Amino acid sequence: MLKGFTAPRSPLGIAALVPSPPWHFAGDVLAVEFWNDPDISAHILPTGVELDEQCRGRSVALFTDYQFTAQNDEHLDPARYQCRGFSILLDAIWKGIPIAWCPYCYVDNDAALMRGWIQGYPRKLGTVHQTRTFAAASLASAPLVHDGRFSACMSAHGRLLVQAGVTLRERAEHLGGMLDRRIVGRRYFPRLSAGLHDKPAVDELVRCVSGHPLITNVWIGEGELNFPEAYGEELEMLGPLKVGRGYRFSFSYSVTDIEVLADLTA
Amino acid sequence: MLKGFTAPRSPLGIAALVPSPPWHFAGDVLAVEFWNDPDISAHILPTGVELDEQCRGRSVALFTDYQFTAQNDEHLDPARYQCRGFSILLDAIWKGIPIAWCPYCYVDNDAALMRGWIQGYPRKLGTVHQTRTFAAASLASAPLVHDGRFSACMSAHGRLLVQAGVTLRERAEHLGGMLDRRIVGRRYFPRLSAGLHDKPAVDELVRCVSGHPLITNVWIGEGELNFPEAYGEELEMLGPLKVGRGYRFSFSYSVTDIEVLADLTA
Amino acid sequence: MLKGFTAPRSPLGIAALVPSPPWHFAGDVLAVEFWNDPDISAHILPTGVELDEQCRGRSVALFTDYQFTAQNDEHLDPARYQCRGFSILLDAIWKGIPIAWCPYCYVDNDAALMRGWIQGYPRKLGTVHQTRTFAAASLASAPLVHDGRFSACMSAHGRLLVQAGVTLRERAEHLGGMLDRRIVGRRYFPRLSAGLHDKPAVDELVRCVSGHPLITNVWIGEGELNFPEAYGEELEMLGPLKVGRGYRFSFSYSVTDIEVLADLTA
Amino acid sequence: MLKGFTAPRSPLGIAALVPSPPWHFAGDVLAVEFWNDPDISAHILPTGVELDEQCRGRSVALFTDYQFTAQNDEHLDPARYQCRGFSILLDAIWKGIPIAWCPYCYVDNDAALMRGWIQGYPRKLGTVHQTRTFAAASLASAPLVHDGRFSACMSAHGRLLVQAGVTLRERAEHLGGMLDRRIVGRRYFPRLSAGLHDKPAVDELVRCVSGHPLITNVWIGEGELNFPEAYGEELEMLGPLKVGRGYRFSFSYSVTDIEVLADLTA
Repeated sequence: MLKGFTAPRSPLGIAALVPSPPWHFAGDVLAVEFWNDPDISAHILPTGVELDEQCRGRSVALFTDYQFTAQNDEHLDPARYQCRGFSILLDAIWKGIPIAWCPYCYVDNDAALMRGWIQGYPRKLGTVHQTRTFAAASLASAPLVHDGRFSACMSAHGRLLVQAGVTLRERAEHLGGMLDRRIVGRRYFPRLSAGLHDKPAVDELVRCVSGHPLITNVWIGEGELNFPEAYGEELEMLGPLKVGRGYRFSFSYSVTDIEVLADLTA
Repeated sequence: MLKGFTAPRSPLGIAALVPSPPWHFAGDVLAVEFWNDPDISAHILPTGVELDEQCRGRSVALFTDYQFTAQNDEHLDPARYQCRGFSILLDAIWKGIPIAWCPYCYVDNDAALMRGWIQGYPRKLGTVHQTRTFAAASLASAPLVHDGRFSACMSAHGRLLVQAGVTLRERAEHLGGMLDRRIVGRRYFPRLSAGLHDKPAVDELVRCVSGHPLITNVWIGEGELNFPEAYGEELEMLGPLKVGRGYRFSFSYSVTDIEVLADLTA
Repeated sequence: MLKGFTAPRSPLGIAALVPSPPWHFAGDVLAVEFWNDPDISAHILPTGVELDEQCRGRSVALFTDYQFTAQNDEHLDPARYQCRGFSILLDAIWKGIPIAWCPYCYVDNDAALMRGWIQGYPRKLGTVHQTRTFAAASLASAPLVHDGRFSACMSAHGRLLVQAGVTLRERAEHLGGMLDRRIVGRRYFPRLSAGLHDKPAVDELVRCVSGHPLITNVWIGEGELNFPEAYGEELEMLGPLKVGRGYRFSFSYSVTDIEVLADLTA
Repeated sequence: MLKGFTAPRSPLGIAALVPSPPWHFAGDVLAVEFWNDPDISAHILPTGVELDEQCRGRSVALFTDYQFTAQNDEHLDPARYQCRGFSILLDAIWKGIPIAWCPYCYVDNDAALMRGWIQGYPRKLGTVHQTRTFAAASLASAPLVHDGRFSACMSAHGRLLVQAGVTLRERAEHLGGMLDRRIVGRRYFPRLSAGLHDKPAVDELVRCVSGHPLITNVWIGEGELNFPEAYGEELEMLGPLKVGRGYRFSFSYSVTDIEVLADLTA
């Protein structure tokens, strides 16, 4: 019997690109809220999802730097299971419910790329960096203090796609409404059979179900954000007209489930 | 309307990780035929596929170094669309028909990784190298000549998984039966909804349909092959008991279609 | 006037691979003490340096994960100036003084590679990972606790060169003698002129001068260490006969100077 | 006795980052000639080197894709010794002799980076790609034909630094004067001792000595070239005011020597 949550399925089930859930994540985030042009960003939404009229174009640019484990101490295999990612989340409405729509997402790791597709995140490979904070005092250690400065960037295939900065102003107990919407994505797996290239085998709107979400070490300040134009990408069309607050925090959560909102193949 | 053959689907359709077929490939191959332990390799086959009793355990290790284009001159974006890959093909039988089963496959490019999953190749990211041949004479240029030597290797996440060598002996008109079986793979896309982790949304046996296949500059000689053991992989279980001929050739082909042999979710 | 501490020297001096000192470092370390075969490791020492008879073969394997800045907020350019490294330090004696000799060193960043050569570290490129600890509780966050487990590994050009593990046992105030020797390396820059290939332009024994060294968050436990054999490397010859304690700590220090102990070209 | 042409020097001499000369190279080149602003590019020249008044600002952007070997069949270790590079060569005069000055140079390999510093090329790590040509006919194979199109690009640390294109027009017997100047570079190795940061240990003008140079498969056509601005680089200051011909050819040569033109530390 072949085993494994994903391909390659194998006799022992340890060759699979993605191990079986539950999946656990712990990491650090640098985030910047911004507003893009709603007349443009409305066009990134699939049928059934609409911009949130209360906050047209409000979005978050999210840089993550995290460690992953499933059931086999994957965090003790850091070459395979540490990951850095970048996502955009756009305030939207699905059937009257506020959601965060994820139009673009990049990670630096193959297991995370495929895990994303399974979760409905449209991931591509990107190279992602953010300034880190270290325990020992130094000009190099970027402490979490008032006026502390952090940067982040993301590139793919040698093109810079996002550049961000955050200047910390004050420690906070919570994110104050930022990231309080459930993330909705789209699981999409095409057919290759002739004549069926536009009839995907899987096309579902899905909502993430996060277990044990935990946010800590929250700092809030001012953000900077820029999406340089790059050949072969459409990210810059969602670029900021206005930039808001910046955030730096640590997080953890688990994933074992997903909620299918709609089957779009029907 | 959102466009794109794959996620991320976008207003212009140019952000998609994989462009729409037809897909065209041109490249160079280093290949080594070998025999693994049929009592072990039989366990890598899915239900309905069996080892070929005429050649139990006969396999090919295939290193490719190629360029890709779809309809938009993707070969003029070499940072995104050049690729190197490694595959194993195992002689097998499906419903009485000789096939080549692909249990493991690695590539160094995200578009190729996802394209592979759509084609039924169980790809993971790997770093693949092969000695190249260059037009200008030099000790460094590895000419295609009698006793010419070529090497190839593949690693993933910093672990060496395959090491191969070929010593050329003679030029040939064709591959002499090597690679004359149609490749069969498995399209597999899991569900993440609780309780359905072992009920994939897509699970199909598929047979590749290659358009305009072309093989040229064929050289045949002796092969060397070694699969070092590596944590988190099962490749070494398919490693060689005996190594046969080595091959070096150039190839091109196109893909626009796939043949679904069986729906395994049924 | 061309400017820059290193090549490429340029009109503004910002293109230089390595910015001018002072240099500041802050990071995390996973370290494992071990004993190699002194009859073998004695041969890695240059003339004038000898094994320490008090602790023949005692060595430390050091994995670093750090951030760098010079005078221009380089830590806000994380894509260029974050770095991970691996070093071996061997207990030795120079003119009666206990020192730590650095025979091999790997980093994942070009500025760090060249900085190392200038400091006397014989760096090559390697891919280095270590389990990280994150603030938010999770199975993935690897907290600093009794029985906490950490791993590290280093590979170069797709070959695994070092694999290590540390199981934490207790928090400590200091490293207890570990890393209390000044590191001695060798600045070596060859000539390429015909007939002078073995007459280096620079060949100096040098001792590092660290400013403001700070060690914090020290945990001590048990170590595991393994140097797999790899083509084109000699690291495994210094591999462990016996493995001792493991350490996990945070550090910072600055560099503005180096002490030249001997000019070996004389 | 420790052995090795460079650090790390070791008992067997096989750990050295760069093997001993002679060095042999074979590869493919995409090149574009261009003219930058001589009032600006004059400032990239060291004392004693001047712009060539006959062709003020004439430069060549050179993308190489090559294989390397020294005395131990290094081309059979392709993971370590294949390389892609980018260089700029600027027409200049040294003591009345026409030369090509190399102000900036990038490679994707650590051995090549250090070899460059030894040869006087001010190398940094870059990611370099060029469209390749393959033997089997295909839309993907980029044949060497009239109107054949090739692209190349170079990025460093996720920022695109150069983008180039060549449209082939005709096959040629030779390069017609392009690349007929000897390349002059600067070997520069700084001191780190306090007070001596601006007194390099090595600072020499050097002229390359190429053995057995061979150019073949020459095609000439039209070039395109663009140097996007990028933080932390000064390349764009040498960017094209005018772009000339484009070239595609194969090459090989050997290196065993260098000619020291001047010792700038004196």
